[in-house]
Amino acid sequence: QNRARLLIACPDQLGIVAAVTSFLYEQGANIVESSQYSTDPQGGTFFLRIEFDCPDMTAKKAEMEKEFAKIAETFEMKWRLSLHNDLKKMAIFVSKEEHCLLELLWEWEAGELLADIAFVISNHEHMRESVEALGIPYYYIPVTKEGKDEAERKQIALLKEHKVDTIVLARYMQILSPAFVAEFPFQIINIHHSFLPAFIGARPYEQAYRRGVKLIGATSHYVTDDLDEGPIIEQDVARVDHRYHPEDLKRVGRIIEKTVLARALKWHLEDRVIIHENKTIVFS
Amino acid sequence: QNRARLLIACPDQLGIVAAVTSFLYEQGANIVESSQYSTDPQGGTFFLRIEFDCPDMTAKKAEMEKEFAKIAETFEMKWRLSLHNDLKKMAIFVSKEEHCLLELLWEWEAGELLADIAFVISNHEHMRESVEALGIPYYYIPVTKEGKDEAERKQIALLKEHKVDTIVLARYMQILSPAFVAEFPFQIINIHHSFLPAFIGARPYEQAYRRGVKLIGATSHYVTDDLDEGPIIEQDVARVDHRYHPEDLKRVGRIIEKTVLARALKWHLEDRVIIHENKTIVFS
Amino acid sequence: QNRARLLIACPDQLGIVAAVTSFLYEQGANIVESSQYSTDPQGGTFFLRIEFDCPDMTAKKAEMEKEFAKIAETFEMKWRLSLHNDLKKMAIFVSKEEHCLLELLWEWEAGELLADIAFVISNHEHMRESVEALGIPYYYIPVTKEGKDEAERKQIALLKEHKVDTIVLARYMQILSPAFVAEFPFQIINIHHSFLPAFIGARPYEQAYRRGVKLIGATSHYVTDDLDEGPIIEQDVARVDHRYHPEDLKRVGRIIEKTVLARALKWHLEDRVIIHENKTIVFS
Amino acid sequence: QNRARLLIACPDQLGIVAAVTSFLYEQGANIVESSQYSTDPQGGTFFLRIEFDCPDMTAKKAEMEKEFAKIAETFEMKWRLSLHNDLKKMAIFVSKEEHCLLELLWEWEAGELLADIAFVISNHEHMRESVEALGIPYYYIPVTKEGKDEAERKQIALLKEHKVDTIVLARYMQILSPAFVAEFPFQIINIHHSFLPAFIGARPYEQAYRRGVKLIGATSHYVTDDLDEGPIIEQDVARVDHRYHPEDLKRVGRIIEKTVLARALKWHLEDRVIIHENKTIVFS
Repeated sequence: QNRARLLIACPDQLGIVAAVTSFLYEQGANIVESSQYSTDPQGGTFFLRIEFDCPDMTAKKAEMEKEFAKIAETFEMKWRLSLHNDLKKMAIFVSKEEHCLLELLWEWEAGELLADIAFVISNHEHMRESVEALGIPYYYIPVTKEGKDEAERKQIALLKEHKVDTIVLARYMQILSPAFVAEFPFQIINIHHSFLPAFIGARPYEQAYRRGVKLIGATSHYVTDDLDEGPIIEQDVARVDHRYHPEDLKRVGRIIEKTVLARALKWHLEDRVIIHENKTIVFS
Repeated sequence: QNRARLLIACPDQLGIVAAVTSFLYEQGANIVESSQYSTDPQGGTFFLRIEFDCPDMTAKKAEMEKEFAKIAETFEMKWRLSLHNDLKKMAIFVSKEEHCLLELLWEWEAGELLADIAFVISNHEHMRESVEALGIPYYYIPVTKEGKDEAERKQIALLKEHKVDTIVLARYMQILSPAFVAEFPFQIINIHHSFLPAFIGARPYEQAYRRGVKLIGATSHYVTDDLDEGPIIEQDVARVDHRYHPEDLKRVGRIIEKTVLARALKWHLEDRVIIHENKTIVFS
Repeated sequence: QNRARLLIACPDQLGIVAAVTSFLYEQGANIVESSQYSTDPQGGTFFLRIEFDCPDMTAKKAEMEKEFAKIAETFEMKWRLSLHNDLKKMAIFVSKEEHCLLELLWEWEAGELLADIAFVISNHEHMRESVEALGIPYYYIPVTKEGKDEAERKQIALLKEHKVDTIVLARYMQILSPAFVAEFPFQIINIHHSFLPAFIGARPYEQAYRRGVKLIGATSHYVTDDLDEGPIIEQDVARVDHRYHPEDLKRVGRIIEKTVLARALKWHLEDRVIIHENKTIVFS
Repeated sequence: QNRARLLIACPDQLGIVAAVTSFLYEQGANIVESSQYSTDPQGGTFFLRIEFDCPDMTAKKAEMEKEFAKIAETFEMKWRLSLHNDLKKMAIFVSKEEHCLLELLWEWEAGELLADIAFVISNHEHMRESVEALGIPYYYIPVTKEGKDEAERKQIALLKEHKVDTIVLARYMQILSPAFVAEFPFQIINIHHSFLPAFIGARPYEQAYRRGVKLIGATSHYVTDDLDEGPIIEQDVARVDHRYHPEDLKRVGRIIEKTVLARALKWHLEDRVIIHENKTIVFS
């Protein structure tokens, strides 16, 4: 295919869009989608995402990058050009609860999630059959208190070996070590089962039950060292009432969790999410 | 009118509904709405709200109460029988922001909020005209750091004098003293401009902006001594994105605040809200 | 288990609730949930659904039914007493699109849908493996223009043989004949891929695209002879905008369809849906 | 202020964005918001809305327009350049129901609706006081069956005299004649009290009640000769259930109506709505 996208971040100033779009025009590209955001026209940061079609894109990519580097230098841009067909390499981590994994696999099969799934890692065995049935390798890596370092070493080895760049924690109930997180900065996406920052930490549905909230939610965010404090990609809620016990909240929550995670992941895979100062800009 | 409602709370046990509905049947009452909830059939608390029509209800009320007291004693009930036309006596407190007050006044005029509005109290003068135009007294009671006690004394005197039983803080930006709150236990309804328990305390929209949430909310709750920790009556949210600055969040938030407050207040006025262990049961 | 539920419909009059709850009390039953609705206290129809726990319920059921028949006669009730553990017998019909079927299977496995799935019928072969993997029989019954009668005969035979009482059309793209529908009155639940009554008939997403709506929806309803005109059980919507082509509407719609169908089905399976004059009363 | 916006529609082709943004750069303009949409990159129509800041914008406008005309000619553009401070001239039509009018007035006072309100026209007298209190002229123009032509002549005269370019039907219950509509093509915004295209025509809440829908909605659209068939700007819904009689649906509906109308109008006033083939593109 001839579709590609260009992502740019640079100090805001006059002429950025003119320079970039003129360049694309000279290359014969047709812009099909363009999104921009500036944190502040005076001295802020400018973000641009352009999706375009260009004849012979695959063949031309290297040359185009070389040419664009000149413009990028002028404007002090951080930038990336990627082909629509160069899929991200993804690994999914899962524990006992399977609803998020199943949703991702279903949407992946339906062509909604454009990614190359390298493998699934779990600290339980029970999802092996469903995963392998789709031709996806399944690694069972149990995690014990003493064996956590060893487990993470195995995980990292697999991730490196397969050149994974996107790790999805689809209700993976183990906390990753700072060392692990540092290996994959802003490449790990988690689904937290609450409307963050409400109910940070463990057992959020029990917390929600005790506080008596009238809506429960889920939050998909990038994982950073601060637990549940990473940049939020997407959130959603559902209505509950006094009759819902923690088990009911969990049941309703599962629907929100899987929907929110799939939506956030889709945006990530299409390079629609930009991280800026612990927040996200989502060009959805 | 012949409509009345009966509210009951008692230890859960067999036969409560049978006893109550048989009593009402003998009185010639027709049940038009009935809601019940038990925290636990084994040793929990049972709550019942019945709305019924009964010929000559107003005349019969005293006699009916006397009769029902026997049943109530048997089941150790806390209970209250009230006529649909006995409106609650309400006072509204407001500061600078007027959207919540205006919404309440509009819904009150439209017949949606069945209450007897005794007066509006404000620490600002600017809403006097709009309020008095509706024939509602407006008291300007400025609040300074040193004069807060004095201001609260004036407020309490007015509230007592008018036998007010429902106080609505419609974006009243002064924190009430524990002494004030103690005078009106579970009779004060506040609208907090966040999805509690997220963003407790001051300037929640600024907090929301910094955290980068994708939904903002509002919470209506009873006021207790713990700031923003009282029983939640109602909550709702609206979607926002990275382009919203704090001012935009406030603008969107106003719509949610006024809607949530009006909904919560309506339920309170119709005796649909029962407080139990810092949570609410809402028979909506 | 000792849980059961009693469903009642009768002309509204004084004393119904008293009579029913007194009866249950005498039987030693504890009411855990009670919902009622009257179309009109004067001459309308009264509906009651009571869920209760009773010691030795299974053993007692026949006796209890015999006793209750007397009360039922007095009040001219249509009624049904059923054990919580007597699951409905369900068949799922599906065509090419698999998202609804997969959602139902997943929720069924997770214990959310309490039903006894007799089999899946499809006019396509491709879902056989997923269905049989769960131990559920899969019948491939192709439907051609000429062979439709024959296909329906086969379907009806299977449904009768397995005593199926609930048929779910999980995006089954064949229109059932009036004869088929007549065999299973108000036992067939469909998911229509629009917010009915908007976009009745074929290709609703294309219709929605042409009209330029800003929300799309899905509707789960009982199937009657009037296409898309049966009693609505549940509906929901999602936001779209001018950028959505019919394919995008379908993609977003799939999430709503499967969620709405699962919700409606759950209520049906728990006897929470009562049909009255082409509308539903849902005691959710 | 120095803010302005440029709206463009033209046949899609390479180089449009490059040409426009280069032009703006040469003028010293800083782009603060840019939205684009193409119905089809091959032979479709391309739409662009750019909001920018430019020093001395007011003084420069005429010259800039002259310069831009050259580019516009090359690309066969339909276009418009407008200053942020050049407010639209708006008239509001209202009948008995006041909730929409009050919402618009409140949001206008709060600075949310940037328009110059020329006057309010009503076929009833009762809102005169509230409107005139804000310094807005109020014209009472009764409409009888025979006097409808005469009434419309008066209305049109007032609208022309005040150079009104935006007419809001805030629950105005008279159907405008084709002649009236023809005078103000795509300048009349209506709020219809249903989720169009469901329940076209009169008494939509009664229709919704009879059909037994589980959500009710409201739709804001441009008025064309085909009743309720004009381009939709915005829609929203709220949940209802079997207990809602038509009066309850109306009550809930009022909240949606006023919210949806205010949202749609705001977008219109900020030139965020583009009409294309009986649909709208909303750059919100």
